[in-house]
Amino acid sequence: MLARRNPQLNANGELIHLLSIEGLPREVLTQILDTAGTFLSVNDREVKKVPLLRGKSVFNLFFENSTRTRTTFEIAAKRLSADVINLDIARSSTAKGESLLDTIANLSAMHADMFVVRHAESGAPYLIAQHVAPHVHVVNAGDGRHAHPTQALLDMYTIRHFKRDFTNLTVAVVGDILHSRVARSDIHALATLGVPEIRAVGPKTLVPGDLAAMGVRVCHDMAEGIRGADVVIMLRLQNERMSGALLPSAAEFFMTFGLTPERMALAAPGAIVMHPGPINRGVEIHSQVADGRASVILPQVTFGIAVRMAVMSLIAGNPA
Amino acid sequence: MLARRNPQLNANGELIHLLSIEGLPREVLTQILDTAGTFLSVNDREVKKVPLLRGKSVFNLFFENSTRTRTTFEIAAKRLSADVINLDIARSSTAKGESLLDTIANLSAMHADMFVVRHAESGAPYLIAQHVAPHVHVVNAGDGRHAHPTQALLDMYTIRHFKRDFTNLTVAVVGDILHSRVARSDIHALATLGVPEIRAVGPKTLVPGDLAAMGVRVCHDMAEGIRGADVVIMLRLQNERMSGALLPSAAEFFMTFGLTPERMALAAPGAIVMHPGPINRGVEIHSQVADGRASVILPQVTFGIAVRMAVMSLIAGNPA
Amino acid sequence: MLARRNPQLNANGELIHLLSIEGLPREVLTQILDTAGTFLSVNDREVKKVPLLRGKSVFNLFFENSTRTRTTFEIAAKRLSADVINLDIARSSTAKGESLLDTIANLSAMHADMFVVRHAESGAPYLIAQHVAPHVHVVNAGDGRHAHPTQALLDMYTIRHFKRDFTNLTVAVVGDILHSRVARSDIHALATLGVPEIRAVGPKTLVPGDLAAMGVRVCHDMAEGIRGADVVIMLRLQNERMSGALLPSAAEFFMTFGLTPERMALAAPGAIVMHPGPINRGVEIHSQVADGRASVILPQVTFGIAVRMAVMSLIAGNPA
Repeated sequence: MLARRNPQLNANGELIHLLSIEGLPREVLTQILDTAGTFLSVNDREVKKVPLLRGKSVFNLFFENSTRTRTTFEIAAKRLSADVINLDIARSSTAKGESLLDTIANLSAMHADMFVVRHAESGAPYLIAQHVAPHVHVVNAGDGRHAHPTQALLDMYTIRHFKRDFTNLTVAVVGDILHSRVARSDIHALATLGVPEIRAVGPKTLVPGDLAAMGVRVCHDMAEGIRGADVVIMLRLQNERMSGALLPSAAEFFMTFGLTPERMALAAPGAIVMHPGPINRGVEIHSQVADGRASVILPQVTFGIAVRMAVMSLIAGNPA
Repeated sequence: MLARRNPQLNANGELIHLLSIEGLPREVLTQILDTAGTFLSVNDREVKKVPLLRGKSVFNLFFENSTRTRTTFEIAAKRLSADVINLDIARSSTAKGESLLDTIANLSAMHADMFVVRHAESGAPYLIAQHVAPHVHVVNAGDGRHAHPTQALLDMYTIRHFKRDFTNLTVAVVGDILHSRVARSDIHALATLGVPEIRAVGPKTLVPGDLAAMGVRVCHDMAEGIRGADVVIMLRLQNERMSGALLPSAAEFFMTFGLTPERMALAAPGAIVMHPGPINRGVEIHSQVADGRASVILPQVTFGIAVRMAVMSLIAGNPA
Repeated sequence: MLARRNPQLNANGELIHLLSIEGLPREVLTQILDTAGTFLSVNDREVKKVPLLRGKSVFNLFFENSTRTRTTFEIAAKRLSADVINLDIARSSTAKGESLLDTIANLSAMHADMFVVRHAESGAPYLIAQHVAPHVHVVNAGDGRHAHPTQALLDMYTIRHFKRDFTNLTVAVVGDILHSRVARSDIHALATLGVPEIRAVGPKTLVPGDLAAMGVRVCHDMAEGIRGADVVIMLRLQNERMSGALLPSAAEFFMTFGLTPERMALAAPGAIVMHPGPINRGVEIHSQVADGRASVILPQVTFGIAVRMAVMSLIAGNPA
């Protein structure tokens, strides 16, 4: 009997949950990006709906609040004609002491078809995926510091859209890499898709030491990190997640690692700037860069809807 | 002129509101259970929707917060193709000093078709039903300590599903009966459907004295209460509703009335265990029982969607 | 090249945003009222839906909470078959320090078709309308003390419904006119539609001095203000907006400007009483008047849904 290596894939290697980029083969990532491309045209149509999830119930389970990410999943699910149930989970039974798995078992018994899960604990979506009925699919919308796979996929879609080929790129990920599930998922996706030079750029306190072992070039100097990059992925500085010991101040961060027009001039000709949003103007990015010609931050948002439609429709179509 | 005995029924004896199990004839309860049976298959279909309430506006008015119950009504209404409006009533005009009846009059003027009401005050859904326009229907989703009729109906559906015939059963309702609208509605439903032995099991402080007068056997000893029962309905211990005077501690409750595997062994062969959820593991029920072979707690949840679809579609189809 | 006088109108003079009544020509107001009339019948139908906004995404952006107004827009949008996204904006990215325009840019990138905006700052909807893509439409659902155009339009619909002709009416607007965006929008609409006598009735501290210059008759005596009026529009006394210096107490307000049956008797025969709701019984209006024969407060609510359907369908159909 073969060992099932990845709980995200069925016996035929098809995607049934999206929990993490780590461990997904390049073909699966490429299939998602290709499918997202077909949905982009749906979003431009007069009637922006396709019936792929008609009559399916998608539950948004945001144990950690994120209006923006929840909204993108809600829009994506509604454009697939699903019924969307938003659970204000902070006010629900979990607050009455019910365990996560009892909550999931109950919602599954209501004939849920898909759970979109954000949770402060790394691994929570895996735990859920292990316990749902075979017809139920799970999408990780961000778990702890672990993974944010749909963000990574929309980042990859954006890079492919503007740069076409991954295999000749230099991509710099800049900022608080230590606390960033976006960075972690992006680096796995970039590696899987064949990007030859991936750089992790940030202060020593905010870049994990083990990245070098993964083939990532670690840069603690911003000029060195940006120079010649084709793609610059800025991370959001999440003040609320950081203790004072790791970083003196937002102003100091901007002085050393903020993306200014001068620093951006070091990047390769035609380089693009990305950011998962919401941006902190004047903290990790200068407004002239955020609003400038190189910025593809708003196209990222547009592609994000299409990528989430792709993920949801693909996993819903694959049997466990 | 005939006196209208029950505001839930129209002149033809058809259900137009669901406010309480008390006073509903057996035929009405049976019709709801039969209709729920036809909806169970809808929930198993690929496209889980029927157009019975298409274009109708269902307002969820939860003056008392309950994410779980609200969600079941939202799912049921959406599977009937209704438009569902969730009112965050704690933050709305009632907070600005508007009276309940002014709020209802305003929502009715928006051409509401149905109100699903949860309220901390017993009788609030009756008050609303008395004041809505003739085409508007009201469903009680739990009022004070008074009634929770859809919970009772899903409990009856569950019992009928697993036991077929009500007229040869012994059913034990166990726990904090005094504060439980579920217990009150269950006891009325069991009596109406012809259950010959209904037991109310709990400490003296938590079982109302007048139950014996209703033909209910009151048991203050758990072994006596469980012995030979075909159905055990455990109630949730609602710490937040109890003063210290009535109950020393959750641990002591578990020692005297918690449903352990040993106690469950006293029940009749093939007995089933029910619970309205969310369960308190180790307080009113042992995990081995909650997760064991006798437990039908998750089927209850599934049946609950079908029962709510049945109630909403039946009352919407009956003229005042 | 012609100067574009009004950002609400396209080059053909068609409505593309609804930001304020001020500056809209009479024909545009009349077109909205006529269109609302056709939607009233939709709200009376068994299936209360028309497919005019099918596949469109309407975002409710309520920076200032108002469950009632948000609900009316949500119902109106759903009856037009739109997908409605309610953003709990107080908990979203703006709370993380994102600017209003960055939030709008992000939501626009999700292919929003319409924003319904309530904001405590006067002018916020204008700012948004200036920055959205050409295909996106903006409806002002109340901004600061500035404007509440859909309320004014439903008020005009109500007046036309009951009084037929604007050009022979005396209309009294009574109460806290200074802080009222409803009063401001109503007065502009009444003037545009040709009402010959518009009265602003209230204490000196709560009636702006410049109204007389607009042709409005200012009355600081309630009897004088009501006498002979065909329409009395009472305003909500918003305690939360007023400092103690402007008004001694709610009881004193009722004594001097509250609408009692005695005062209502001074109005013209067949006069109607309106109120934007929620009403403060015994503060600005006596219950006998609010619930009496002259009151058209609940029809206002009904007409409000139709008027909002009219506004949304009209602006969605007009190209920028």
